[in-house]
Amino acid sequence: MPKPLVVNLFEMNCVSHIVHGLWSHPDNNRHRINDIEYWKELAQLLEYGTFDAVFLADVIGAYDTFRDGLDTAVREAMQIPRNDPFLAIAAMAAVTRNLGFGGTFSTTYEPPFGFAQRISTLDHLTNGRLGWNIVTSYLPNAARNFGLDDEIPHDKRFEIADEYIDVLYKLWEGSWEDSAVLFDRESRIYADPARVHYIDHASEHYKVEGPHLTQPSRQRTPVLFQATGSKAGAEFAGRHAEVVFTGGGTPEEVRANIRLMKARAVAHGRTPDSIKFLVRAAVIVGRSDLEAQKKLEGYRKYQSVEAALAHGQSHFDFARVPPSVKLSTILPKDYKGHWRRLADTAPEVTVGEALRQIGGFNEGRYFVVGTPKTVVDEIERWIDEDGIDGINLLQFLTFETARDFIERVIPELRRRGRFRESYNDGETLRERIFGAGHSRLPAEHYGARYRNNPAALKIPTQRLRFAETPADASIAPLAAVAARTPTIKRTAAPTALP
Amino acid sequence: MPKPLVVNLFEMNCVSHIVHGLWSHPDNNRHRINDIEYWKELAQLLEYGTFDAVFLADVIGAYDTFRDGLDTAVREAMQIPRNDPFLAIAAMAAVTRNLGFGGTFSTTYEPPFGFAQRISTLDHLTNGRLGWNIVTSYLPNAARNFGLDDEIPHDKRFEIADEYIDVLYKLWEGSWEDSAVLFDRESRIYADPARVHYIDHASEHYKVEGPHLTQPSRQRTPVLFQATGSKAGAEFAGRHAEVVFTGGGTPEEVRANIRLMKARAVAHGRTPDSIKFLVRAAVIVGRSDLEAQKKLEGYRKYQSVEAALAHGQSHFDFARVPPSVKLSTILPKDYKGHWRRLADTAPEVTVGEALRQIGGFNEGRYFVVGTPKTVVDEIERWIDEDGIDGINLLQFLTFETARDFIERVIPELRRRGRFRESYNDGETLRERIFGAGHSRLPAEHYGARYRNNPAALKIPTQRLRFAETPADASIAPLAAVAARTPTIKRTAAPTALP
Repeated sequence: MPKPLVVNLFEMNCVSHIVHGLWSHPDNNRHRINDIEYWKELAQLLEYGTFDAVFLADVIGAYDTFRDGLDTAVREAMQIPRNDPFLAIAAMAAVTRNLGFGGTFSTTYEPPFGFAQRISTLDHLTNGRLGWNIVTSYLPNAARNFGLDDEIPHDKRFEIADEYIDVLYKLWEGSWEDSAVLFDRESRIYADPARVHYIDHASEHYKVEGPHLTQPSRQRTPVLFQATGSKAGAEFAGRHAEVVFTGGGTPEEVRANIRLMKARAVAHGRTPDSIKFLVRAAVIVGRSDLEAQKKLEGYRKYQSVEAALAHGQSHFDFARVPPSVKLSTILPKDYKGHWRRLADTAPEVTVGEALRQIGGFNEGRYFVVGTPKTVVDEIERWIDEDGIDGINLLQFLTFETARDFIERVIPELRRRGRFRESYNDGETLRERIFGAGHSRLPAEHYGARYRNNPAALKIPTQRLRFAETPADASIAPLAAVAARTPTIKRTAAPTALP
Repeated sequence: MPKPLVVNLFEMNCVSHIVHGLWSHPDNNRHRINDIEYWKELAQLLEYGTFDAVFLADVIGAYDTFRDGLDTAVREAMQIPRNDPFLAIAAMAAVTRNLGFGGTFSTTYEPPFGFAQRISTLDHLTNGRLGWNIVTSYLPNAARNFGLDDEIPHDKRFEIADEYIDVLYKLWEGSWEDSAVLFDRESRIYADPARVHYIDHASEHYKVEGPHLTQPSRQRTPVLFQATGSKAGAEFAGRHAEVVFTGGGTPEEVRANIRLMKARAVAHGRTPDSIKFLVRAAVIVGRSDLEAQKKLEGYRKYQSVEAALAHGQSHFDFARVPPSVKLSTILPKDYKGHWRRLADTAPEVTVGEALRQIGGFNEGRYFVVGTPKTVVDEIERWIDEDGIDGINLLQFLTFETARDFIERVIPELRRRGRFRESYNDGETLRERIFGAGHSRLPAEHYGARYRNNPAALKIPTQRLRFAETPADASIAPLAAVAARTPTIKRTAAPTALP
């Protein structure tokens, strides 16, 4: 039986997410994000199409480094305005039964106790359909929204995240035993106090007494998502992540990343298949290759290079240099990253070429345009040659992209046995990804040590430590990052471009 | 025209809220709180009944001081398990159009930036139907869930709250001008950067750069609710609150509280009618007075004195003393508060009498049992004699209490012109309470100074300062507190019993 494809829609509660400028397309619905009807319509469309999940990225700061201010981001609605992801998920949960959800939250700025209870509440409300994308937040403005003067260094953020998530596991897995809730009206015992525990967590950054205020939800711990493009990120994923949005611009890079992270998972006592790998994918489908190409050309008319530069936090204003100038002659000496390497290795490359890349749709390996046959042929290569498990479908137009995929791509995937015929009604998100009976973290996962095991709450745990060094060359950054981020402050490789 | 009544349902995302023990009643639905269908059913019932709003209390710690542990609270489901209120509101918003919502959040432990964006998101998703109940959190365990060793003293918490809410106003009112969002696809300007502002807040406890990431919602600032039983609370309400859950066991006390808070509002430049006053009310209705009385007797069978003692954080175990013993002979010397005063002024009062009060339904002024006529006669007295504007309806059984009110009390209120015939479709919560056209904070409200006025963001504001002293005798605590809280640690009067 051929390996099936996991299909998530890539969303964010904002007007312009990652396809810069297309909010201004007359057929786009993205300006409706403030309206609950948008989310209900989207959720019901995706459930009609039997998507696995809708995945919401997030940021908690504005992109205000390009041209030293907010102007470009605000004009282009580039992730500002942006709203909370989890409240939209709660609204979508009310009008669906099977669609899964993933939401992004940062471990860096808000206390774990508050987050833990919100997530448990939402895993209850979705009846176990929830995933959490773990991020540590990379915008300087985010730091300044939460009382800091500047960002915490990249690897330090991962150290904090490793403590943070340990608090969460103790609350989600350890605080209430499976047998705690009795709901015995006759004897008047709702829960057995002997099976509800304080967690008494104390580590460098967190001190949390507990108990968890929420009783265990179906999954207890939501499905743990992560996007990695750094050595520290890969180490973190090895211990914690269950679904990884992997980077890399070429099949070789993606395969290498997957190998590396599987190896890290094994090093943490997990099985190699305990992590599923998703790539961000662009799929433009038409009844003919020409129709699909025309659709792409139609999208291109609305692209914004400036929004892409703002998103990339560029410290060099490519857009204000004549396109014919050679990059190598004009790039500042202290400029680091992708464009520096390109300028050094290919001195003839012009600013115009750089701008085409920056303002483009990141048209690398996971970008396909054509008939359903063309598209699914390509998707099958991603699965079989690169070893991916699924995609996070990029939206050019909301809701056109999802509709096209549902009406044209999914039937073809089904014909080839690459996509389920229908939902298994009532399954959790973790069961959908890892199979029936797998609603909870597997026993060998780090977080499972606390489950029904109050003694484990008292054992000090070995924290992950990440050296304050640039990422290892053996992990390729997310393709989006490589193409769109002309320079990155302080850290050699960002963890994810939301 | 007679003064109409505001009717909120008093809810909390927990199994046993404030009517102790009744979760064990066979007709109660409270154990269903983890199920989204509970919230959908409740919201649609209340909207069918044209309730003004459903109001959700909250706590972020366990009641673990009684008998030095969690046992009683966990056995009795006494606000543990408890889930997040705002996620339930988002789910309810998806299946209603007019019902208002109030949710509780504490200003003490989580950063204002994260909260500000969640509330703005929810005001968008509800299309302006949101209220926020401002609390500062009074449980020692809550403090220990957020890294502290013990509670911050009462009045200090209000000082922090006054800074916290100033950050919120700057984000909600000041960061985006009304004219900022252009949504101009042709010119490709989503918003005008000249009208989106950093807030650059810096005060003793908070440093927040902004801008707000969410564009202005219909109400900008949600309707501000507060429950007060302290002098500091009254001062805070005078500046900030728009709806106050007022305390006091007698009409005189309630009238005095209302007078005091109106005076504080006036001292802060507001009109006397800028605050609406709600009381927590218990209404048990039957087709005859006898039927209603029998219903009450039926509820009594499930009452739990021990849960009430746990809720009151009692440091003296009334339940383990023979009921015939006189309170004055057995109450510890250092015991403070209501029972101390009672023991001193009425030395003949027995422990049995104290237990009847503690375990009772707080059957004071705002407790009525009888036919619709009996009930509404009484409610009219509350409105006309005591000067209240509305009620927070206590639930004995979910959904029986709300159904009874809808089917039997609302028709009688309508006959007397005390309740609207239908919703004004599409109005905001603030309009429902303060009239058409009043979706935003009124101009004279402290928070409105920042609206469309970026210069105001740069003016340092005069913070409220509350002396570290016991509450002034001129404000009577919430009735629930007086009856149920045998002793209160550190602070002379708690702000609210959630």
